[in-house]
Amino acid sequence: MAQAHWGCCPWLVLLCALGAWGHPKSVDLTAEDVRNCLISPPYLPVTVVNTTAQLTALRQQMHIQNLFAYIIPETDAHMSEYIGTRDKRRAWMTGFTGSAGTAVVTMGKAGLWTDSRYWTQAERQMDCNWELHKEADIKEDIPGRIVTDRSLTGEPETVPGGSWESYNMALMNSNIKLVSITPNLVDQAWGSEKPLVLSQPIYVLQEAFTGNTWQKKVSDIRSQMQKHPKAPTAVLLSALDETAWLFNLRGSDIPYNPFFYSYTLLTDSSIRLFVNRSCLNSETLKYLNSSCTGSMCVQVEDYSQVRHNVQAYASGNVKIWIGTSYTTYGLYEVIPTEKLIEDTYSPVMVTKAVKNSKEQALLRASHVRDAVAVIRYLVWLEKNVPKGTVDEFSGAELLNKFRGKEQFSSGPSFETISASGLNAALAHYSPTKELHRKLSSDEMYLLDSGGQYWDGTTDITRTVHWGTPSAFQKEAYTRVLIGNIDLSRLVFPANTSGRMMEVFARRALWDVGLNYGHGTGHGIGNFLCVHEWPVGFQYNNIPMAKGMFTSIEPGYYQDGEFGIRLEDVALVVEAKTKYPGSYLTFEVVSLVPYDRNLIDVSLLSPEQLQYLNHYYQTIREKVGPELQQRQLLEEFEWLQQHTEPLSAKAPHTAPLASLLAVSSLAILGCRV
Amino acid sequence: MAQAHWGCCPWLVLLCALGAWGHPKSVDLTAEDVRNCLISPPYLPVTVVNTTAQLTALRQQMHIQNLFAYIIPETDAHMSEYIGTRDKRRAWMTGFTGSAGTAVVTMGKAGLWTDSRYWTQAERQMDCNWELHKEADIKEDIPGRIVTDRSLTGEPETVPGGSWESYNMALMNSNIKLVSITPNLVDQAWGSEKPLVLSQPIYVLQEAFTGNTWQKKVSDIRSQMQKHPKAPTAVLLSALDETAWLFNLRGSDIPYNPFFYSYTLLTDSSIRLFVNRSCLNSETLKYLNSSCTGSMCVQVEDYSQVRHNVQAYASGNVKIWIGTSYTTYGLYEVIPTEKLIEDTYSPVMVTKAVKNSKEQALLRASHVRDAVAVIRYLVWLEKNVPKGTVDEFSGAELLNKFRGKEQFSSGPSFETISASGLNAALAHYSPTKELHRKLSSDEMYLLDSGGQYWDGTTDITRTVHWGTPSAFQKEAYTRVLIGNIDLSRLVFPANTSGRMMEVFARRALWDVGLNYGHGTGHGIGNFLCVHEWPVGFQYNNIPMAKGMFTSIEPGYYQDGEFGIRLEDVALVVEAKTKYPGSYLTFEVVSLVPYDRNLIDVSLLSPEQLQYLNHYYQTIREKVGPELQQRQLLEEFEWLQQHTEPLSAKAPHTAPLASLLAVSSLAILGCRV
Repeated sequence: MAQAHWGCCPWLVLLCALGAWGHPKSVDLTAEDVRNCLISPPYLPVTVVNTTAQLTALRQQMHIQNLFAYIIPETDAHMSEYIGTRDKRRAWMTGFTGSAGTAVVTMGKAGLWTDSRYWTQAERQMDCNWELHKEADIKEDIPGRIVTDRSLTGEPETVPGGSWESYNMALMNSNIKLVSITPNLVDQAWGSEKPLVLSQPIYVLQEAFTGNTWQKKVSDIRSQMQKHPKAPTAVLLSALDETAWLFNLRGSDIPYNPFFYSYTLLTDSSIRLFVNRSCLNSETLKYLNSSCTGSMCVQVEDYSQVRHNVQAYASGNVKIWIGTSYTTYGLYEVIPTEKLIEDTYSPVMVTKAVKNSKEQALLRASHVRDAVAVIRYLVWLEKNVPKGTVDEFSGAELLNKFRGKEQFSSGPSFETISASGLNAALAHYSPTKELHRKLSSDEMYLLDSGGQYWDGTTDITRTVHWGTPSAFQKEAYTRVLIGNIDLSRLVFPANTSGRMMEVFARRALWDVGLNYGHGTGHGIGNFLCVHEWPVGFQYNNIPMAKGMFTSIEPGYYQDGEFGIRLEDVALVVEAKTKYPGSYLTFEVVSLVPYDRNLIDVSLLSPEQLQYLNHYYQTIREKVGPELQQRQLLEEFEWLQQHTEPLSAKAPHTAPLASLLAVSSLAILGCRV
Repeated sequence: MAQAHWGCCPWLVLLCALGAWGHPKSVDLTAEDVRNCLISPPYLPVTVVNTTAQLTALRQQMHIQNLFAYIIPETDAHMSEYIGTRDKRRAWMTGFTGSAGTAVVTMGKAGLWTDSRYWTQAERQMDCNWELHKEADIKEDIPGRIVTDRSLTGEPETVPGGSWESYNMALMNSNIKLVSITPNLVDQAWGSEKPLVLSQPIYVLQEAFTGNTWQKKVSDIRSQMQKHPKAPTAVLLSALDETAWLFNLRGSDIPYNPFFYSYTLLTDSSIRLFVNRSCLNSETLKYLNSSCTGSMCVQVEDYSQVRHNVQAYASGNVKIWIGTSYTTYGLYEVIPTEKLIEDTYSPVMVTKAVKNSKEQALLRASHVRDAVAVIRYLVWLEKNVPKGTVDEFSGAELLNKFRGKEQFSSGPSFETISASGLNAALAHYSPTKELHRKLSSDEMYLLDSGGQYWDGTTDITRTVHWGTPSAFQKEAYTRVLIGNIDLSRLVFPANTSGRMMEVFARRALWDVGLNYGHGTGHGIGNFLCVHEWPVGFQYNNIPMAKGMFTSIEPGYYQDGEFGIRLEDVALVVEAKTKYPGSYLTFEVVSLVPYDRNLIDVSLLSPEQLQYLNHYYQTIREKVGPELQQRQLLEEFEWLQQHTEPLSAKAPHTAPLASLLAVSSLAILGCRV
C-alpha cells in the first residue's frame, strides 16, 4: 500500500513528507456531522469523546512538575508503524484515533496538529477542549502559538532523537526550554485504566524460514563494527523489527507485525536482549545460549532496564552506534555526544534491507501462495458482485479467510483497504462492520491487502471493474499501468536512489495532466514489516541495491468518483546490459493479472506490451501449476483467460479458443 | 556546457557535488611530465611554479598574527564562477591554475585539495612545497591532517557563510578554533605584485535590452520584503549578477561575464550601491538618481566600505534578508544572528530566474543570431576539415569571429570547448594556441560554446562526424539525442524539481549500460551568467517554473576515444494537457540541427521522431529567413538539407530534390 499515507515513520511523514505532492482532498461524506464549537452550547456529534477528565488529570501532573506544556506524539518507544492500545496515548488524551497527529497540552490550552487527510475525522472525534491546527509542521507553531516563556516538555521515550533536535532548533531563539522527563505523564494520568501489557509468548522462527542463524547475523554486525573507521564498541537497536530479525524471534505484541517489545545492545563482547522475560520459555532461552556469559551468549535483561543499562554501559570507554530514525530521545540522551556514532539507519536496518538468496526464495514463495488467495477472491467476486450481495467489509473478511487457508499464513499484514466507487479516492479508507459500501458492477473496486506468512510478507493492490468502465476510467487505469510497467522495466545504475527514478511511474499520467499524491513504493520484509524501511522511492530512502524488495504502486484518484492503484512487489536484480556495467532492474514477484476490462491496449507501446505479456507468461508458469495441484480448476481457467497475451490489434477480451495459446511476444522474453 | 565541471558555485561543487555520479577519468596524455617529489633532487617539469617565496611571505604574515593555518579557496568575494586575475590567490600561491581546489597552509606544511579532474594538472604545476590531497571533501581532512590544536583561519571575504559553518561543524569536537581575520593575508604577502583593479567603465544597458526599469525592479523586491512574514527591512546582494540585473548596469571586471565589482544594500527607505565610484560617469550617476537621498535614489558608496556600512546598518532595529549561497562569511559575520533572514538564494536571485515576456523574447532573439554564427562555422568546417587545415584552436577562433559579426555581440560567454577525438572525452578540455589537435574526417568533434549578446547569453553543444562513424558511435550519439528529446518533450507538474526529472535524459543510455558523469543542465541569463543559478537539474536548484530558461545537455564519454554532448537551451512553458491542470514543458530555443550522419533513426520511437521533425521545422521557420535575408545562401541550403524531415524508413541523407518539402510529420506539430 502507498506509504505516504501509512509510512513506517509517522514522525517523518508528519514533519517532512507533507506537501511534497499534496494530498487528494478528502471527501467529506457527512460534512454536517462534525463538532461546532462556535455556537453555544457547542454542537457535538455522538462520535466525540469527552476529554475533560483526561486533561484535568494530565494538568495535575504538569502542575506537580511545574511544566508549561506537554507534547504527545502518537507512536511507541520503538517508532513502530502499528502500535498497541497501551501506547495510543494521544488517542486516549484527545479522542482522535487517526494514525498521524501530535497533541500539545498547556495549562490553559490543548491543540492537535494533523494533516488534511484527518481534519474531518478530528472534527468528528474531538470535543471543544481541543483546537485543531491544520498546519503540517508543528515545529513552526510551537513557539508562537502554544508556548510563551516557560518549560516545554515531551515524552522522551517516544520522541525520536532527530525530532527532539529539530524542536530544539525551532525553540533556539526563544525563552522556552525543552526538557526531558520520565515517567510519562500521560501514563500517570491514565493510571489504572491504561491497558496492561499482554504477555504473549516470544517464539523462534524455524530455520527453514530464516536467511541465517542469529549467530551468523551477530558475527556479521560485529564484523561491520570492526571495519567501521570510528570503531564502535556497540550497536543499540530500538526498532522492533531489528531485534526480531537479528535473533530470528517473533511475537504478537503489535497488530499486523509479528513483533515483541524489545531492545538490543550488541557489544563487541556481549549481547544484551531487553524483553519481558516471562515471554521466553526454556526452549527459547536455550536457543539464545542465555545460561552463559561469553560473547555469543545472549544475556536476557528486563525490558524496563534498557535506559539504565545503556547509561551504565555508556559510562565506560565505549562508542555506541545508533540509527537516529528509530532511536528515541529517551535513550539518545543517556549517551554522551562524544560516545555516539550516528547514522540515519542502524547497520542491522541496512543489512536487513538486502535479502540473501534464501530470503529471496522465501519471499518469492510466499507471493505465489498469496497470489492464489487473491485470485480465489477475484474469481469469487466476479461471480458474486453482480448478485448484489457483496460489500466492502464482508469482501475483506472473505479475502482474509482465503489467505488464512494458505500454508504458513499468519494473518493480514495490514488492515485491508477494500474500497468501492468513490471510497477508493479516499487516501486512508478501510471499511468497518458498521460503515461500508456495497460492491457493484457499475463501480470500480480497489483492493489493497497483504498477508503475513512465515516465509514472507506480501502487499498487493488491484483495481477492477465488472461492468462497463468509462473511457476516462480506462485511460486513467491504463496510464497507471504504464507507470507501473515503465518503472518495473527500468534499467538503472547500481546505487541510484529510488527518489530519482520514481518519475517513470508518473510520466504517462503527467502527459495528460494527471498525477497521484502519494509515494511510489516501500521496502517489505520476510515475515516482518509490510513497510520495511529504509528501502523505497522517498527522499529519505537509501539507494537501490541488488537483493532489495520494494513495492511499485502508482495510482490515480478522482475525488468523489473512483480510485485506482496498481501495486506489485519487486526484487532488485542485476540487469544484463548490452555494454558491460553495474546496472540493475526490477523483477516483479507479485503474480496477479491486471484487469483486462480496464486496459486500453492502444495506449501501450510495443515495448510495454511485450513486457506485460512476458509478465503474464511468468504468472502462468508460477501460479498455474499451484492452482492445478490444488484442484482449483475454475481459478486456473480464470488465470489462463486473464493472462492471455494482449495484442495491439486484438479485442480486449481474448476468445476462449485461444486460452492455452502463447503468443510469440510472450515467449520472446524482454529481459531476465 | 555541463555545470558539474564548470559550476557557478565552485564551493558547492567542491564540497557537495563530487561523487554524485562520479567523473570520467581524465586521460593522462603525457603522464611522464609530472613532478616526482620522491626522488632526490625532485623531478620538476618546466610547467611547475616555484612557490617558495610566496609561502615564505604568507608564513611571515601568519607568524605576525600568531596563526596556525590559513585556508585559501579559489573564488572572489562574490562567489563568482569566473574571477579576475587579482582574485586568483590560490593560483598565485600554489602555481595550480585549475578552476576547482582549495589550499591550506600551516607553518610547516602546505596542501592542495582538488578532485580527480585536476590531479594531473596539479602534479604538473605545483612544486614539492605542496602535498596533493585527492579527497573530495576538505572538511573531512582538516582536523586530522593539517591542524592539530591551534587557531585555524580562512579568508572571511572569500569563504561563503554556509561553508564557514560546515568547517565549524567539522572542527566542533577538536581544539581548533576557526577565526576570521582581515585584511587578506595572501594579499599582504602578494604585496605590490598583486595585479591592480582595472577601472573599467560601468555602463547602462539600453532599455531595449532590459525586462524592466531598475525602479520597477527595486519596487518589486521591496514589495516582496513587505509581504515576507519575517518583515525584512533590507536585502543584501553579494553576487555580481544580482546588482548588474537590478540596476540594468554592466561592466567588464570579470572574464566572460559583463559584471563589475559591486554590492547592494537595498533597504525599505534607501538604496546603497557599493562600487568603484570612478567607474561611473555623470550620465550613469544621473540615471541612478544619485544626487538625491529619497527611497528611489541610489546612494553610491565606495566598494571597500561595504563591510563597515552593513555593520553600521545592522546596529539598528533592522532585519537583513540574504541568500547564503552567495554571501561570504566576511559580511555574514557582521550581522547579528537575530537580525538575519537567511534563504539559500536572495529574492533577487529567485526573481531574476523567471524571465518576463520581454526578457523571453530577447533571449529567443539572441539564440536565432547565435544559430547563424554556429551554422556558418559548421558549414565552413564541412568544407575545410577534409583539407586537413583546421585545428581545435584555430576553429574556436573562427567561431568567435563569426559570433563577433552578429548584432549586439559582446564576446564569448565562456572559453570554447573545441575538442577533437579523444580530447572530447576530457571533462574540462579547451585547446590552447600551443596545445591542440587537428580536426579530421575520421574523428568526432565536440563543440561547446556560447556568446554574450546585449539581449541574451547563449550556450550550445553539437557533436559532429564528417566521415564514417562506427556503429557504437552512432548508437551512443542517438541515445544521447533521445535523452535530450525525452527530457525536452517531458510534460511535468508545475514546481517539479529538475533533480526529479533529469533521469529522462539518461534512460536511453542506461538501457544499454551507458551513462554520463555530469549534471544535465543549468540556468542562463539575459546578457548575464552562462551558468545562472538557481535554475537547473541539480539537487540544490529550485523547482521549475514558467519563464525559466535552462540548458538540457546529456552526453556520453568514451575514455581515450571520443566524447558526445548535445546541449540546447530551453524555456519552461505551460503545457496544454488533455485534462486541466498546472503542467509545464520545455520549448527549445537553440536552433542548430543535429548531425544526421550520427543519427540511427531506427532507435527513435514514432513520438521521438515526430518531436525531432517538429523541432527541425521550427529551425527552418526561425533561422531560414535570417540566413536568406543576410544572403547566406550556402548556409541556407545546408540548413534545408540538415533539417529535412527524418523518417524511420528513409535513408539518413535526404535527396536534394526534396529540399523544400515539409513532411506531414513535421507540420503535425507535437506540441506548442
